[in-house]
Amino acid sequence: MRTVPQAQEITLQHVQRLDVESVPIERVLGRVLAEDVVSNRNHPPCDISAMDGYAIRFSDVKGATKNSPVTLNVVDDIRAGSTPKHPVCAGEASMIMTGAPVPGGSDAVIRVEDTSRRSHKGRHSKQEHPEAVDIWVEVPSGNNIRLMGENLKLGDTVLNVGAVIRPAEVGILSMVKKAQVSVYRHPTVAILATGDELEALNEPLNPEKIPNSNTYSTMAQIQALGIEPVLLGIARDTREHLEEKLLQGLQYDVLIVTGGVSVGHHDFVRPTLQDMGITIHFWRVAMRPGHPMAFGTGPKTKVFALPGNPVAGMVCCEQFIVPAMRKMMGFGQLYRPTVEATVASDVKDRAGRMHFMRAHLSGKENNLQIESVGAQGSGILMSMVRANALMVVPVECDYLRAGDRVRVQLPGSDQFQTEPRLDIC
Amino acid sequence: MRTVPQAQEITLQHVQRLDVESVPIERVLGRVLAEDVVSNRNHPPCDISAMDGYAIRFSDVKGATKNSPVTLNVVDDIRAGSTPKHPVCAGEASMIMTGAPVPGGSDAVIRVEDTSRRSHKGRHSKQEHPEAVDIWVEVPSGNNIRLMGENLKLGDTVLNVGAVIRPAEVGILSMVKKAQVSVYRHPTVAILATGDELEALNEPLNPEKIPNSNTYSTMAQIQALGIEPVLLGIARDTREHLEEKLLQGLQYDVLIVTGGVSVGHHDFVRPTLQDMGITIHFWRVAMRPGHPMAFGTGPKTKVFALPGNPVAGMVCCEQFIVPAMRKMMGFGQLYRPTVEATVASDVKDRAGRMHFMRAHLSGKENNLQIESVGAQGSGILMSMVRANALMVVPVECDYLRAGDRVRVQLPGSDQFQTEPRLDIC
Repeated sequence: MRTVPQAQEITLQHVQRLDVESVPIERVLGRVLAEDVVSNRNHPPCDISAMDGYAIRFSDVKGATKNSPVTLNVVDDIRAGSTPKHPVCAGEASMIMTGAPVPGGSDAVIRVEDTSRRSHKGRHSKQEHPEAVDIWVEVPSGNNIRLMGENLKLGDTVLNVGAVIRPAEVGILSMVKKAQVSVYRHPTVAILATGDELEALNEPLNPEKIPNSNTYSTMAQIQALGIEPVLLGIARDTREHLEEKLLQGLQYDVLIVTGGVSVGHHDFVRPTLQDMGITIHFWRVAMRPGHPMAFGTGPKTKVFALPGNPVAGMVCCEQFIVPAMRKMMGFGQLYRPTVEATVASDVKDRAGRMHFMRAHLSGKENNLQIESVGAQGSGILMSMVRANALMVVPVECDYLRAGDRVRVQLPGSDQFQTEPRLDIC
Repeated sequence: MRTVPQAQEITLQHVQRLDVESVPIERVLGRVLAEDVVSNRNHPPCDISAMDGYAIRFSDVKGATKNSPVTLNVVDDIRAGSTPKHPVCAGEASMIMTGAPVPGGSDAVIRVEDTSRRSHKGRHSKQEHPEAVDIWVEVPSGNNIRLMGENLKLGDTVLNVGAVIRPAEVGILSMVKKAQVSVYRHPTVAILATGDELEALNEPLNPEKIPNSNTYSTMAQIQALGIEPVLLGIARDTREHLEEKLLQGLQYDVLIVTGGVSVGHHDFVRPTLQDMGITIHFWRVAMRPGHPMAFGTGPKTKVFALPGNPVAGMVCCEQFIVPAMRKMMGFGQLYRPTVEATVASDVKDRAGRMHFMRAHLSGKENNLQIESVGAQGSGILMSMVRANALMVVPVECDYLRAGDRVRVQLPGSDQFQTEPRLDIC
C-alpha cells in the first residue's frame, strides 16, 4: 500500500508533457506556451502622447497657473495614426490625441483638461490653426509621453516557453500578431464506469440500482481542467463487455475507470487491464476516502482506476489525476492549493491513512478556520456539496483538537501550486 | 466623476439576472442553478455494505482476534444489484459486495481483509455454500453499513436555486437523473474596437499603427467567465462606420466598446451611442488606470465603453464588467477576491483616484507581501504579464510605506466574493 505522496510521485514519473500543437489565439486562454515569443515591433513605435492634449516644450510652461496661464500658438493637430507636420518651437503647441506621435521639439504633453482654447491669430494661416491655447499648469519634462518600446522592444523575448496564458498574455500575443500560438497539447480523456449494479442516467429509475454518478462528477472534474472527456458509458460485469469497453478507452491518452478495483471476486478490472498489456504501478493507497485506487500505463494510455464510492472517486481524482493531467498539459504548478487553517472543533479520526475530510473553511486569509461538515461516509456525496475544502488529517494522526493547525486543500480553486504541501511544515 | 464603488453600484443597479434556460448535464459545470432540485430516490436505496466482506451479527464476533477467530457458516453471496436470498441467523455470515443490500438479521459488515475462507460443511448443500469463514476482529453494530437515504432522501430538496454547480453538484444531479438542468442564461457579448490608429490582427504589421490588442485581452477576460464573445472587429473613425458597427453590437446582451471615450474631439463613441438611444450613466471614474470608462443602457443592451489603453481596459473590465456579467449569470458572489497584504517597499503615488497598481504578491496566506512590478504606464501591458495581483492604493493615499497593510485584488482567481472589499476595514 502506497502513501499519498508515494502514489503521486509514481504517477508523475510515468506521465510526460505532451507534444506541441498550434492553436488560434481565440482558443489559447489557459494553455501553456510551447514557444518563446519574440516581439516583432516596438510598442509604442515611437514616443507617443498618453493623453488628449497639447504637445509643448516644458520650459515654455514653467510657472503657469490657472490665474496666470501661458498662451501658446497652436501649430498642428496630430491624430493617432498620423504624422506630425510641424515641429514645436518655443512659444508653440500642437494639439495631440492619445496615441499620436509626439512632434519634434516638444518634450511634454499637457492634458486638455488643464488648458483652454481661444481665438488667436498665430503665425499660421487662419484656415490651418486659427487658435491659441492657454496652459494652466506646469509639468516636468517627459510628462504624459510614452517612450518608444516602453511596452515591447523589437527583438526582445516577451513571453517564455512554459508561460500560462492569461488575458494579459493573450493581449501581448495579439500585439506581436501571433494569430496562431504553439501550446502543449491537451490529453484526450475517456471515462468508463463499471458494474452491473449501476443505473445509467438515461435508464428509468430503479430503486434497487446505484445511479451512475461517478461518470458525471469525474467528467466535471476533467472539464474544470479545460478538457472535454469522452464518456464510454458502463461496462457490465462480463469479461467480454469489459474488454470491449477498455479497448475503446485505450485509444485515448488517459482512461479513467470508475469502480471495480477493490479486492472482491467480482472485481476484474485490474486483472483484465493487466491481461490487455497495462502495467499496474499501484492499486492501493493509504488514504481515506479512496483506498482502492489503481494506476497503470500502456503503450499509449495512462489508466486511472478510481474507487466506485462517489466521494472516494472525486478525492482520488483530485490527488492523482489532476496533477498528472496538468503535467501532461505542460503546467509547472500541478497541485491544488493548500492553506493552513485552525481546527475549529475537535476531530476524532483513525490513524493509518491520510484522511481528506470534507470540511468548511471560513474566516479571513490570516485567520482561517476549518471544520468538518459532518458524516464522512464515502458514499455521502451530499457532504461534498456542503464542503468547500478538504481538511488533510495526517496519516499518523487519530485526534485533532480545536486550535490545532492543519493543512486544507481547496479543490474549488484554480490557483495551483508547485508542491503538494499536504502536511504542516 | 464617479468613485469606483459608486460606478460599480450604478452598473449593478442597471443589470439584472437573465432568464432561465435548460442545459444538458454535460454543459452545466460552473452555471448557477435556477431550480430547486428534489431527490426522486433514496440513496442508498436500502442499508448497503460499504465494503467487500461478510454481513454478520455483531454479537457473534465479540472477542474475535486473529489468534482466536470466530468461525461462521456462509449462507449467501450477495452481489451489488442483487437481493439477499437468506437472512443471517446466529452463527451465520453472508458474503457481501460493496454496495450490495445488507441481509435481514445482520447488523454489521466485516471487511474481507479481516477474514479468511476455509472449507467447512455447513447446513447448506455443498454446491451452494461449501465454506465457512473465520472472522478475526470484533466490530460495533452498524460497522461498514451505509444506511438507507444517508446521502439522498426521497422528496428532500438536495440542491437550491442559486447554487453554483461544481463537480459534486454535477454528481448529485446525475444521481437524481437530471439529464437537463435549469440554469440562468449566460449573456451574449460582443466586443468592438474603435479607432483609425488600430491595426487589426490580420493586417500586415505597420510600425506606425497601434496593434488592436484590447479586443483579444477583453475576449480572454470574458472567456475566463465561461462566455464566448463575438468579435465585431474595428470601427473606423467615421460616424457611419461607427454607427453600423454599434448597431450590430446592440443585438447582444452586452456590448463592450474599446477606445474612444476620452474628451478629445475625435472621440464620438459616447455621443453616437446617445444618438442611438443609449442612456449613459457615467463616463468617468476616479481610478487609475482607467479614467475614461463609460456605462450605458439601451432597451436590450448594456454597453461598457472601456478606455483604449490596454492595461486600463483590462482593469476596468475587472472592476465593472466582471461583476455585472456575474450578476446577469445569477451569481451571488460578484467580485474578484481581495486579500490583505503587507507593502514590501515604499510606493509613491498621486492622491485623488483609486489606483490599481500592477504588483507581485508572494508569501504564505498568513504573511502575504505585495510589491509593485515597476513602471505603471497604462500602455505597458507587459507589466500585467509580470504581475499576479493588483495592489489597491486608496483614493486619498499618496504614499504607502513598507509595512503598511493594503488590499490586493486577485484577477487570476475564480474564488469570487460577495463584497468588493477594496479598502482595508
